[in-house]
Amino acid sequence: MTWRRAETARGRAIRPEGARDVTRTLPEETPVALVYDGSTQAVMMATPADIADFAVGFTLTEGFAEAGEIGEVEVLLHPRGIEARLWLPEHRRAALARRRRAMAGPVGCGLCGIDSLDEATRALPAVPEGARFTAAEITNAADDLRGHQPLHDLTRAVHAAGFLLPGEGIVLAREDVGRHNALDKLIGALARAGIDAGQGAIVLTSRVSTEMVQKTAMAGCPVLVAVSAPTAHALRLAEGCGLTLAAFARAGGVDLYAHPHRILTEAADVA
Amino acid sequence: MTWRRAETARGRAIRPEGARDVTRTLPEETPVALVYDGSTQAVMMATPADIADFAVGFTLTEGFAEAGEIGEVEVLLHPRGIEARLWLPEHRRAALARRRRAMAGPVGCGLCGIDSLDEATRALPAVPEGARFTAAEITNAADDLRGHQPLHDLTRAVHAAGFLLPGEGIVLAREDVGRHNALDKLIGALARAGIDAGQGAIVLTSRVSTEMVQKTAMAGCPVLVAVSAPTAHALRLAEGCGLTLAAFARAGGVDLYAHPHRILTEAADVA
Repeated sequence: MTWRRAETARGRAIRPEGARDVTRTLPEETPVALVYDGSTQAVMMATPADIADFAVGFTLTEGFAEAGEIGEVEVLLHPRGIEARLWLPEHRRAALARRRRAMAGPVGCGLCGIDSLDEATRALPAVPEGARFTAAEITNAADDLRGHQPLHDLTRAVHAAGFLLPGEGIVLAREDVGRHNALDKLIGALARAGIDAGQGAIVLTSRVSTEMVQKTAMAGCPVLVAVSAPTAHALRLAEGCGLTLAAFARAGGVDLYAHPHRILTEAADVA
Repeated sequence: MTWRRAETARGRAIRPEGARDVTRTLPEETPVALVYDGSTQAVMMATPADIADFAVGFTLTEGFAEAGEIGEVEVLLHPRGIEARLWLPEHRRAALARRRRAMAGPVGCGLCGIDSLDEATRALPAVPEGARFTAAEITNAADDLRGHQPLHDLTRAVHAAGFLLPGEGIVLAREDVGRHNALDKLIGALARAGIDAGQGAIVLTSRVSTEMVQKTAMAGCPVLVAVSAPTAHALRLAEGCGLTLAAFARAGGVDLYAHPHRILTEAADVA
Protein backbone atom coordinates (compact mmCIF):
# COMPACT_ATOMS: atom_id res chain seq x y z
CA MET A 1 0.00 0.00 0.00
CA THR A 2 1.44 3.36 -1.00
CA TRP A 3 -0.01 6.83 -1.44
CA ARG A 4 1.34 9.00 -4.21
CA ARG A 5 1.51 12.77 -3.78
CA ALA A 6 0.19 13.49 -7.28
CA GLU A 7 -1.75 11.72 -10.02
CA THR A 8 -2.05 12.27 -13.76
CA ALA A 9 -5.52 13.11 -15.06
CA ARG A 10 -6.77 13.41 -18.61
CA GLY A 11 -9.28 16.10 -19.50
CA ARG A 12 -10.63 18.01 -22.46
CA ALA A 13 -9.34 21.57 -22.83
CA ILE A 14 -11.88 24.00 -24.29
CA ARG A 15 -10.08 27.03 -25.68
CA PRO A 16 -11.14 29.97 -27.88
CA GLU A 17 -9.27 28.33 -30.77
CA GLY A 18 -10.92 24.91 -30.30
CA ALA A 19 -10.91 21.80 -28.12
CA ARG A 20 -8.12 19.32 -27.49
CA ASP A 21 -7.20 16.55 -25.05
CA VAL A 22 -5.06 17.64 -22.13
CA THR A 23 -3.09 15.85 -19.41
CA ARG A 24 -2.52 17.47 -16.02
CA THR A 25 -0.72 16.42 -12.87
CA LEU A 26 -3.14 16.91 -9.99
CA PRO A 27 -2.17 16.94 -6.32
CA GLU A 28 -3.43 13.96 -4.32
CA GLU A 29 -5.47 14.40 -1.15
CA THR A 30 -5.99 11.65 1.43
CA PRO A 31 -7.99 11.28 4.63
CA VAL A 32 -5.57 11.27 7.56
CA ALA A 33 -6.79 10.09 10.97
CA LEU A 34 -4.91 11.31 14.04
CA VAL A 35 -5.30 8.69 16.73
CA TYR A 36 -4.18 9.41 20.30
CA ASP A 37 -3.86 6.42 22.60
CA GLY A 38 -6.38 4.47 20.57
CA SER A 39 -9.03 7.17 20.06
CA THR A 40 -9.42 9.20 16.89
CA GLN A 41 -9.22 12.92 17.64
CA ALA A 42 -9.46 14.29 14.09
CA VAL A 43 -9.71 13.18 10.48
CA MET A 44 -8.44 15.68 7.94
CA MET A 45 -7.77 15.69 4.22
CA ALA A 46 -4.05 16.18 3.54
CA THR A 47 -1.33 15.60 1.00
CA PRO A 48 -0.01 12.06 1.69
CA ALA A 49 3.54 13.04 2.60
CA ASP A 50 5.36 13.95 5.83
CA ILE A 51 2.54 12.48 7.91
CA ALA A 52 4.62 12.08 11.07
CA ASP A 53 5.57 15.77 10.83
CA PHE A 54 1.89 16.60 10.39
CA ALA A 55 0.85 14.58 13.42
CA VAL A 56 3.51 16.13 15.67
CA GLY A 57 2.80 19.65 14.38
CA PHE A 58 -0.96 19.33 14.87
CA THR A 59 -0.39 17.99 18.38
CA LEU A 60 1.76 21.01 19.25
CA THR A 61 -0.36 23.71 17.61
CA GLU A 62 -3.56 22.36 19.18
CA GLY A 63 -1.81 22.37 22.56
CA PHE A 64 -2.40 18.64 23.15
CA ALA A 65 1.18 18.14 24.35
CA GLU A 66 4.66 19.65 24.34
CA ALA A 67 7.43 18.52 22.03
CA GLY A 68 9.28 16.45 24.65
CA GLU A 69 6.10 14.54 25.52
CA ILE A 70 5.46 13.13 22.04
CA GLY A 71 7.18 9.86 21.27
CA GLU A 72 7.55 8.15 17.92
CA VAL A 73 4.58 8.44 15.56
CA GLU A 74 3.35 5.21 13.98
CA VAL A 75 2.09 5.83 10.43
CA LEU A 76 -0.16 3.15 8.85
CA LEU A 77 -1.21 3.21 5.21
CA HIS A 78 -4.74 1.88 4.68
CA PRO A 79 -6.62 1.50 1.39
CA ARG A 80 -8.92 4.42 2.29
CA GLY A 81 -6.47 6.71 4.00
CA ILE A 82 -3.60 7.09 6.42
CA GLU A 83 -3.61 6.63 10.18
CA ALA A 84 -1.10 8.35 12.46
CA ARG A 85 -0.91 6.86 15.95
CA LEU A 86 0.49 8.84 18.85
CA TRP A 87 0.81 8.14 22.55
CA LEU A 88 0.67 10.87 25.17
CA PRO A 89 1.58 10.94 28.87
CA GLU A 90 -1.26 10.08 31.24
CA HIS A 91 -2.14 13.67 32.27
CA ARG A 92 -2.30 14.78 28.62
CA ARG A 93 -4.40 11.79 27.70
CA ALA A 94 -6.95 12.61 30.41
CA ALA A 95 -7.11 16.28 29.33
CA LEU A 96 -7.72 15.26 25.73
CA ALA A 97 -10.53 12.90 26.71
CA ARG A 98 -12.16 15.67 28.78
CA ARG A 99 -11.89 18.00 25.77
CA ARG A 100 -13.64 15.45 23.55
CA ARG A 101 -16.43 15.00 26.07
CA ALA A 102 -16.88 18.77 26.54
CA MET A 103 -17.32 19.14 22.78
CA ALA A 104 -20.07 16.53 22.83
CA GLY A 105 -22.28 17.48 25.73
CA PRO A 106 -25.85 16.18 25.57
CA VAL A 107 -28.52 18.48 24.17
CA GLY A 108 -29.02 21.44 26.47
CA CYS A 109 -25.79 20.87 28.40
CA GLY A 110 -23.19 21.49 25.69
CA LEU A 111 -21.20 24.65 25.58
CA CYS A 112 -23.61 27.42 24.67
CA GLY A 113 -22.74 29.64 21.73
CA ILE A 114 -21.25 32.43 23.85
CA ASP A 115 -19.01 30.07 25.85
CA SER A 116 -17.86 28.47 22.61
CA LEU A 117 -17.03 31.86 21.09
CA ASP A 118 -14.97 32.75 24.16
CA GLU A 119 -13.12 29.45 23.84
CA ALA A 120 -12.48 30.09 20.13
CA THR A 121 -10.89 33.44 20.87
CA ARG A 122 -8.70 32.37 23.78
CA ALA A 123 -5.52 34.35 24.38
CA LEU A 124 -2.35 33.17 22.70
CA PRO A 125 1.00 32.75 24.43
CA ALA A 126 3.34 35.70 23.92
CA VAL A 127 6.02 34.85 21.35
CA PRO A 128 9.73 35.09 22.31
CA GLU A 129 11.83 38.05 21.23
CA GLY A 130 13.89 35.87 18.88
CA ALA A 131 16.18 37.06 16.12
CA ARG A 132 16.35 40.04 13.79
CA PHE A 133 16.18 39.97 9.98
CA THR A 134 17.31 42.39 7.33
CA ALA A 135 14.57 43.80 5.12
CA ALA A 136 16.20 42.04 2.15
CA GLU A 137 15.91 38.64 3.87
CA ILE A 138 12.19 39.19 4.30
CA THR A 139 11.49 40.62 0.83
CA ASN A 140 13.42 37.71 -0.72
CA ALA A 141 11.81 35.05 1.48
CA ALA A 142 8.99 34.06 -0.89
CA ASP A 143 11.39 33.72 -3.84
CA ASP A 144 13.69 31.67 -1.62
CA LEU A 145 10.77 29.40 -0.64
CA ARG A 146 9.92 28.83 -4.33
CA GLY A 147 13.12 26.77 -4.55
CA HIS A 148 11.73 24.32 -1.96
CA GLN A 149 8.37 23.44 -3.54
CA PRO A 150 8.82 20.26 -5.63
CA LEU A 151 5.13 19.28 -5.48
CA HIS A 152 4.08 22.76 -6.50
CA ASP A 153 6.50 22.55 -9.43
CA LEU A 154 4.60 19.43 -10.56
CA THR A 155 1.03 20.60 -9.91
CA ARG A 156 0.97 24.40 -9.49
CA ALA A 157 -1.75 23.79 -6.92
CA VAL A 158 -0.34 23.28 -3.41
CA HIS A 159 0.77 25.54 -0.57
CA ALA A 160 4.08 25.62 1.26
CA ALA A 161 5.40 26.77 4.62
CA GLY A 162 9.11 27.38 5.07
CA PHE A 163 11.46 28.23 7.95
CA LEU A 164 13.85 31.14 7.47
CA LEU A 165 16.97 31.60 9.60
CA PRO A 166 18.87 34.91 9.72
CA GLY A 167 21.87 34.72 7.38
CA GLU A 168 20.90 31.22 6.16
CA GLY A 169 17.70 31.64 4.15
CA ILE A 170 15.00 28.93 4.01
CA VAL A 171 16.42 25.88 5.79
CA LEU A 172 13.32 23.64 5.82
CA ALA A 173 9.96 23.59 4.02
CA ARG A 174 6.84 21.44 3.81
CA GLU A 175 4.03 21.34 1.25
CA ASP A 176 0.35 20.41 1.37
CA VAL A 177 -2.89 20.92 -0.51
CA GLY A 178 -4.07 22.81 2.59
CA ARG A 179 -2.23 25.81 3.99
CA HIS A 180 -3.04 24.83 7.59
CA ASN A 181 -1.55 21.39 7.01
CA ALA A 182 1.59 22.77 5.35
CA LEU A 183 2.17 24.91 8.45
CA ASP A 184 1.51 22.03 10.87
CA LYS A 185 3.91 19.83 8.88
CA LEU A 186 6.62 22.49 9.06
CA ILE A 187 6.13 22.99 12.80
CA GLY A 188 6.25 19.23 13.35
CA ALA A 189 9.37 18.90 11.20
CA LEU A 190 11.12 21.64 13.19
CA ALA A 191 10.25 19.94 16.49
CA ARG A 192 11.37 16.52 15.25
CA ALA A 193 14.67 18.00 14.00
CA GLY A 194 15.22 19.77 17.34
CA ILE A 195 15.23 23.21 15.68
CA ASP A 196 14.01 26.08 17.89
CA ALA A 197 11.17 27.86 16.04
CA GLY A 198 11.92 30.94 18.17
CA GLN A 199 15.15 31.64 16.29
CA GLY A 200 13.65 32.11 12.82
CA ALA A 201 10.66 33.19 10.76
CA ILE A 202 7.86 31.20 9.17
CA VAL A 203 7.18 31.97 5.50
CA LEU A 204 3.82 31.10 3.86
CA THR A 205 2.65 31.01 0.24
CA SER A 206 -0.90 31.75 1.40
CA ARG A 207 -3.06 34.34 3.09
CA VAL A 208 -2.84 34.78 6.86
CA SER A 209 -6.09 33.73 8.49
CA THR A 210 -6.64 33.50 12.23
CA GLU A 211 -5.46 29.88 12.44
CA MET A 212 -2.10 30.69 10.80
CA VAL A 213 -1.31 33.22 13.54
CA GLN A 214 -2.55 30.84 16.25
CA LYS A 215 -0.36 27.98 14.99
CA THR A 216 2.72 30.22 14.61
CA ALA A 217 2.30 31.56 18.15
CA MET A 218 1.72 28.06 19.57
CA ALA A 219 4.99 27.00 17.89
CA GLY A 220 6.79 29.89 19.62
CA CYS A 221 7.89 31.53 16.39
CA PRO A 222 8.04 35.36 16.55
CA VAL A 223 7.93 36.30 12.83
CA LEU A 224 5.35 35.37 10.17
CA VAL A 225 5.85 36.34 6.51
CA ALA A 226 3.14 35.65 3.92
CA VAL A 227 2.79 36.12 0.19
CA SER A 228 -0.81 37.27 0.47
CA ALA A 229 -3.12 39.28 2.74
CA PRO A 230 -3.84 38.89 6.45
CA THR A 231 -7.37 39.13 7.79
CA ALA A 232 -8.18 41.96 10.19
CA HIS A 233 -8.75 39.41 12.98
CA ALA A 234 -5.41 37.70 12.32
CA LEU A 235 -3.69 41.09 12.52
CA ARG A 236 -5.31 41.84 15.90
CA LEU A 237 -4.16 38.44 17.21
CA ALA A 238 -0.61 39.11 15.99
CA GLU A 239 -0.62 42.50 17.73
CA GLY A 240 -1.83 40.83 20.92
CA CYS A 241 0.79 38.10 21.14
CA GLY A 242 3.80 40.13 20.00
CA LEU A 243 4.15 38.48 16.58
CA THR A 244 5.81 40.35 13.73
CA LEU A 245 3.44 40.10 10.77
CA ALA A 246 4.71 40.78 7.23
CA ALA A 247 2.33 40.28 4.30
CA PHE A 248 2.15 40.77 0.53
CA ALA A 249 5.74 39.49 0.29
CA ARG A 250 6.22 39.58 -3.48
CA ALA A 251 7.82 41.45 -6.34
CA GLY A 252 10.73 42.47 -4.14
CA GLY A 253 8.50 44.16 -1.56
CA VAL A 254 6.64 43.42 1.66
CA ASP A 255 4.16 45.22 3.93
CA LEU A 256 4.98 45.25 7.63
CA TYR A 257 2.05 45.28 10.07
CA ALA A 258 2.26 44.21 13.71
CA HIS A 259 5.56 44.54 15.64
CA PRO A 260 7.86 45.48 12.74
CA HIS A 261 10.92 46.03 14.99
CA ARG A 262 12.34 42.57 14.23
CA ILE A 263 12.85 43.58 10.60
CA LEU A 264 15.68 46.05 10.21
CA THR A 265 15.03 48.66 7.56
CA GLU A 266 17.83 50.98 6.40
CA ALA A 267 18.08 54.33 8.18
CA ALA A 268 17.73 56.00 4.77
CA ASP A 269 14.39 54.26 4.30
CA VAL A 270 12.73 55.93 7.25
CA ALA A 271 10.51 58.53 5.66
CA MET B 1 -23.14 45.46 18.24
CA THR B 2 -22.22 45.21 14.60
CA TRP B 3 -19.58 43.29 12.70
CA ARG B 4 -18.02 44.92 9.65
CA ARG B 5 -16.92 42.80 6.70
CA ALA B 6 -13.63 44.66 6.29
CA GLU B 7 -11.33 46.91 8.31
CA THR B 8 -8.68 49.43 7.36
CA ALA B 9 -5.14 48.69 8.52
CA ARG B 10 -2.02 50.81 8.38
CA GLY B 11 1.30 49.23 7.59
CA ARG B 12 4.77 50.07 6.37
CA ALA B 13 5.49 49.15 2.75
CA ILE B 14 9.08 48.08 2.09
CA ARG B 15 9.84 48.40 -1.61
CA PRO B 16 13.04 48.28 -3.69
CA GLU B 17 12.82 52.07 -4.08
CA GLY B 18 12.36 52.72 -0.33
CA ALA B 19 9.82 52.53 2.48
CA ARG B 20 6.52 54.35 2.90
CA ASP B 21 3.34 54.14 4.96
CA VAL B 22 0.53 52.16 3.38
CA THR B 23 -3.17 51.70 4.11
CA ARG B 24 -4.96 48.48 3.16
CA THR B 25 -8.51 47.25 3.49
CA LEU B 26 -8.35 43.80 5.10
CA PRO B 27 -11.20 41.30 5.17
CA GLU B 28 -12.69 40.70 8.63
CA GLU B 29 -12.96 37.23 10.09
CA THR B 30 -15.23 36.35 13.02
CA PRO B 31 -15.88 33.24 15.10
CA VAL B 32 -19.34 31.92 14.22
CA ALA B 33 -20.99 29.36 16.50
CA LEU B 34 -23.65 27.11 14.99
CA VAL B 35 -26.01 26.12 17.80
CA TYR B 36 -28.63 23.42 17.23
CA ASP B 37 -31.41 23.21 19.78
CA GLY B 38 -29.20 24.77 22.44
CA SER B 39 -25.99 22.80 21.81
CA THR B 40 -23.02 24.13 19.87
CA GLN B 41 -22.14 21.82 17.00
CA ALA B 42 -19.33 23.83 15.40
CA VAL B 43 -17.42 27.09 15.74
CA MET B 44 -15.82 28.34 12.55
CA MET B 45 -14.06 31.51 11.45
CA ALA B 46 -16.06 33.26 8.72
CA THR B 47 -16.68 36.59 7.07
CA PRO B 48 -19.41 38.29 9.18
CA ALA B 49 -22.05 38.50 6.46
CA ASP B 50 -24.90 36.26 5.28
CA ILE B 51 -24.74 34.23 8.49
CA ALA B 52 -28.25 32.79 8.16
CA ASP B 53 -27.32 31.55 4.67
CA PHE B 54 -24.15 30.06 6.13
CA ALA B 55 -26.03 28.26 8.90
CA VAL B 56 -28.61 26.79 6.53
CA GLY B 57 -25.98 25.81 3.95
CA PHE B 58 -23.75 24.10 6.53
CA THR B 59 -26.77 22.23 7.91
CA LEU B 60 -27.61 20.93 4.42
CA THR B 61 -24.08 20.05 3.28
CA GLU B 62 -23.32 18.24 6.53
CA GLY B 63 -26.56 16.28 6.10
CA PHE B 64 -27.95 17.41 9.49
CA ALA B 65 -31.38 18.11 7.97
CA GLU B 66 -33.20 18.76 4.70
CA ALA B 67 -34.23 22.20 3.51
CA GLY B 68 -37.89 21.89 4.51
CA GLU B 69 -36.92 20.90 8.06
CA ILE B 70 -34.94 24.04 8.89
CA GLY B 71 -36.98 26.92 10.28
CA GLU B 72 -35.91 30.50 10.76
CA VAL B 73 -32.32 31.04 11.87
CA GLU B 74 -31.77 33.37 14.82
CA VAL B 75 -28.53 35.34 14.42
CA LEU B 76 -27.08 36.99 17.56
CA LEU B 77 -24.14 39.39 17.44
CA HIS B 78 -21.88 39.06 20.50
CA PRO B 79 -18.74 41.06 21.32
CA ARG B 80 -16.52 38.03 20.58
CA GLY B 81 -18.36 36.55 17.63
CA ILE B 82 -21.67 35.61 16.08
CA GLU B 83 -24.08 32.91 17.16
CA ALA B 84 -26.54 31.28 14.75
CA ARG B 85 -29.33 29.35 16.45
CA LEU B 86 -31.27 26.66 14.60
CA TRP B 87 -33.97 24.25 15.66
CA LEU B 88 -34.35 20.82 14.10
CA PRO B 89 -37.17 18.24 14.18
CA GLU B 90 -36.93 15.70 17.02
CA HIS B 91 -35.53 12.81 14.93
CA ARG B 92 -32.80 15.05 13.46
CA ARG B 93 -31.95 16.39 16.89
CA ALA B 94 -31.47 12.88 18.26
CA ALA B 95 -29.27 11.88 15.29
CA LEU B 96 -27.10 14.94 15.78
CA ALA B 97 -26.64 14.22 19.49
CA ARG B 98 -25.64 10.61 18.68
CA ARG B 99 -23.13 11.92 16.14
CA ARG B 100 -21.57 14.21 18.75
CA ARG B 101 -21.30 11.37 21.25
CA ALA B 102 -19.79 9.00 18.67
CA MET B 103 -17.09 11.58 17.97
CA ALA B 104 -16.25 11.72 21.65
CA GLY B 105 -16.06 8.13 22.79
CA PRO B 106 -13.95 7.48 25.88
CA VAL B 107 -10.35 6.42 25.43
CA GLY B 108 -10.20 3.00 23.85
CA CYS B 109 -13.83 3.02 22.72
CA GLY B 110 -13.79 5.85 20.21
CA LEU B 111 -13.85 5.19 16.51
CA CYS B 112 -10.56 3.64 15.60
CA GLY B 113 -8.55 5.16 12.79
CA ILE B 114 -9.76 2.75 10.12
CA ASP B 115 -13.44 3.22 11.01
CA SER B 116 -12.94 6.98 10.95
CA LEU B 117 -11.30 6.84 7.53
CA ASP B 118 -14.24 4.81 6.19
CA GLU B 119 -16.64 7.39 7.61
CA ALA B 120 -14.61 10.23 6.03
CA THR B 121 -14.85 8.66 2.58
CA ARG B 122 -18.54 7.77 2.66
CA ALA B 123 -20.33 7.57 -0.68
CA LEU B 124 -22.01 10.71 -1.96
CA PRO B 125 -25.56 10.87 -3.31
CA ALA B 126 -25.73 10.74 -7.11
CA VAL B 127 -26.43 14.21 -8.50
CA PRO B 128 -29.50 14.80 -10.73
CA GLU B 129 -29.15 15.02 -14.49
CA GLY B 130 -30.06 18.74 -14.47
CA ALA B 131 -29.54 21.21 -17.27
CA ARG B 132 -27.11 21.64 -20.14
CA PHE B 133 -24.75 24.58 -20.69
CA THR B 134 -23.00 25.92 -23.75
CA ALA B 135 -19.21 25.88 -23.63
CA ALA B 136 -19.28 29.70 -23.80
CA GLU B 137 -21.43 29.90 -20.65
CA ILE B 138 -18.86 27.84 -18.78
CA THR B 139 -15.75 29.56 -20.14
CA ASN B 140 -17.32 32.96 -19.29
CA ALA B 141 -18.53 31.89 -15.85
CA ALA B 142 -15.54 33.12 -13.84
CA ASP B 143 -15.59 36.53 -15.54
CA ASP B 144 -19.33 36.71 -14.91
CA LEU B 145 -18.75 35.90 -11.22
CA ARG B 146 -16.20 38.72 -10.95
CA GLY B 147 -19.10 41.15 -11.28
CA HIS B 148 -20.64 39.78 -8.07
CA GLN B 149 -17.69 40.11 -5.66
CA PRO B 150 -17.99 43.47 -3.85
CA LEU B 151 -15.89 42.38 -0.86
CA HIS B 152 -13.17 41.06 -3.14
CA ASP B 153 -13.20 44.41 -4.97
CA LEU B 154 -12.42 46.05 -1.60
CA THR B 155 -9.87 43.59 -0.25
CA ARG B 156 -8.57 41.38 -3.11
CA ALA B 157 -8.44 38.60 -0.53
CA VAL B 158 -11.73 36.68 -0.32
CA HIS B 159 -13.31 33.80 -2.21
CA ALA B 160 -16.69 33.63 -3.91
CA ALA B 161 -19.18 30.97 -4.97
CA GLY B 162 -21.81 31.79 -7.59
CA PHE B 163 -24.82 30.04 -9.11
CA LEU B 164 -25.07 29.94 -12.89
CA LEU B 165 -28.35 29.27 -14.71
CA PRO B 166 -28.46 28.33 -18.41
CA GLY B 167 -29.23 31.40 -20.47
CA GLU B 168 -29.19 33.70 -17.41
CA GLY B 169 -25.59 33.80 -16.20
CA ILE B 170 -24.67 34.15 -12.50
CA VAL B 171 -27.93 34.82 -10.63
CA LEU B 172 -26.65 34.67 -7.02
CA ALA B 173 -23.26 34.77 -5.32
CA ARG B 174 -21.79 34.78 -1.83
CA GLU B 175 -18.32 35.70 -0.55
CA ASP B 176 -16.20 34.62 2.40
CA VAL B 177 -12.61 34.57 3.58
CA GLY B 178 -12.89 30.78 3.38
CA ARG B 179 -13.83 28.93 0.22
CA HIS B 180 -15.80 26.28 2.12
CA ASN B 181 -17.85 28.99 3.82
CA ALA B 182 -18.51 30.85 0.54
CA LEU B 183 -19.93 27.62 -0.89
CA ASP B 184 -22.03 26.86 2.20
CA LYS B 185 -23.39 30.44 2.12
CA LEU B 186 -24.34 30.06 -1.54
CA ILE B 187 -26.05 26.71 -0.94
CA GLY B 188 -27.94 28.16 2.02
CA ALA B 189 -28.96 31.23 0.03
CA LEU B 190 -30.30 29.03 -2.78
CA ALA B 191 -32.32 26.94 -0.33
CA ARG B 192 -33.72 30.02 1.46
CA ALA B 193 -34.71 31.56 -1.91
CA GLY B 194 -36.37 28.31 -2.98
CA ILE B 195 -34.03 27.93 -5.99
CA ASP B 196 -33.38 24.32 -7.08
CA ALA B 197 -29.60 23.78 -7.13
CA GLY B 198 -30.19 20.92 -9.58
CA GLN B 199 -31.05 23.30 -12.41
CA GLY B 200 -27.75 25.20 -12.53
CA ALA B 201 -24.00 25.10 -11.97
CA ILE B 202 -21.86 26.23 -9.04
CA VAL B 203 -18.89 28.44 -9.93
CA LEU B 204 -15.92 28.84 -7.55
CA THR B 205 -12.98 31.24 -7.46
CA SER B 206 -10.89 28.59 -5.71
CA ARG B 207 -9.36 25.17 -6.11
CA VAL B 208 -11.59 22.09 -5.89
CA SER B 209 -10.70 20.05 -2.84
CA THR B 210 -12.64 17.03 -1.63
CA GLU B 211 -15.01 19.08 0.51
CA MET B 212 -16.06 21.28 -2.41
CA VAL B 213 -17.26 18.22 -4.35
CA GLN B 214 -18.93 16.79 -1.24
CA LYS B 215 -20.84 20.02 -0.55
CA THR B 216 -21.90 20.44 -4.19
CA ALA B 217 -23.20 16.86 -4.34
CA MET B 218 -25.01 17.21 -0.99
CA ALA B 219 -26.71 20.33 -2.41
CA GLY B 220 -27.87 18.27 -5.41
CA CYS B 221 -26.07 20.44 -7.98
CA PRO B 222 -24.75 18.50 -11.03
CA VAL B 223 -22.09 20.90 -12.39
CA LEU B 224 -19.06 22.42 -10.63
CA VAL B 225 -16.86 25.01 -12.36
CA ALA B 226 -13.68 26.31 -10.69
CA VAL B 227 -11.04 28.85 -11.54
CA SER B 228 -8.23 26.66 -10.23
CA ALA B 229 -7.17 23.01 -10.01
CA PRO B 230 -9.03 20.01 -8.58
CA THR B 231 -7.26 17.47 -6.41
CA ALA B 232 -7.02 13.90 -7.70
CA HIS B 233 -9.28 12.73 -4.85
CA ALA B 234 -11.90 15.38 -5.62
CA LEU B 235 -11.90 14.26 -9.26
CA ARG B 236 -12.48 10.62 -8.24
CA LEU B 237 -15.41 11.70 -6.02
CA ALA B 238 -16.90 13.72 -8.90
CA GLU B 239 -16.60 10.72 -11.20
CA GLY B 240 -18.31 8.55 -8.59
CA CYS B 241 -21.35 10.75 -7.97
CA GLY B 242 -21.98 11.82 -11.56
CA LEU B 243 -20.83 15.43 -11.11
CA THR B 244 -19.56 17.40 -14.11
CA LEU B 245 -16.23 18.90 -13.07
CA ALA B 246 -14.75 21.85 -15.00
CA ALA B 247 -11.53 23.43 -13.76
CA PHE B 248 -8.95 26.06 -14.74
CA ALA B 249 -11.84 28.28 -15.93
CA ARG B 250 -9.88 31.36 -16.98
CA ALA B 251 -8.57 33.32 -19.95
CA GLY B 252 -11.54 32.24 -22.06
CA GLY B 253 -10.84 28.54 -21.57
CA VAL B 254 -11.73 25.66 -19.27
CA ASP B 255 -10.65 22.03 -18.76
CA LEU B 256 -13.42 19.44 -18.58
CA TYR B 257 -12.81 16.39 -16.42
CA ALA B 258 -15.56 14.14 -15.03
CA HIS B 259 -18.90 13.77 -16.88
CA PRO B 260 -18.39 16.47 -19.52
CA HIS B 261 -21.68 15.66 -21.34
CA ARG B 262 -23.58 18.49 -19.65
CA ILE B 263 -21.37 21.03 -21.40
CA LEU B 264 -22.14 21.24 -25.10
CA THR B 265 -19.09 21.78 -27.24
CA GLU B 266 -19.44 22.64 -30.94
CA ALA B 267 -19.45 19.67 -33.33
CA ALA B 268 -16.50 21.29 -35.09
CA ASP B 269 -14.54 21.19 -31.83
CA VAL B 270 -14.63 17.43 -31.54
CA ALA B 271 -11.17 16.39 -32.56
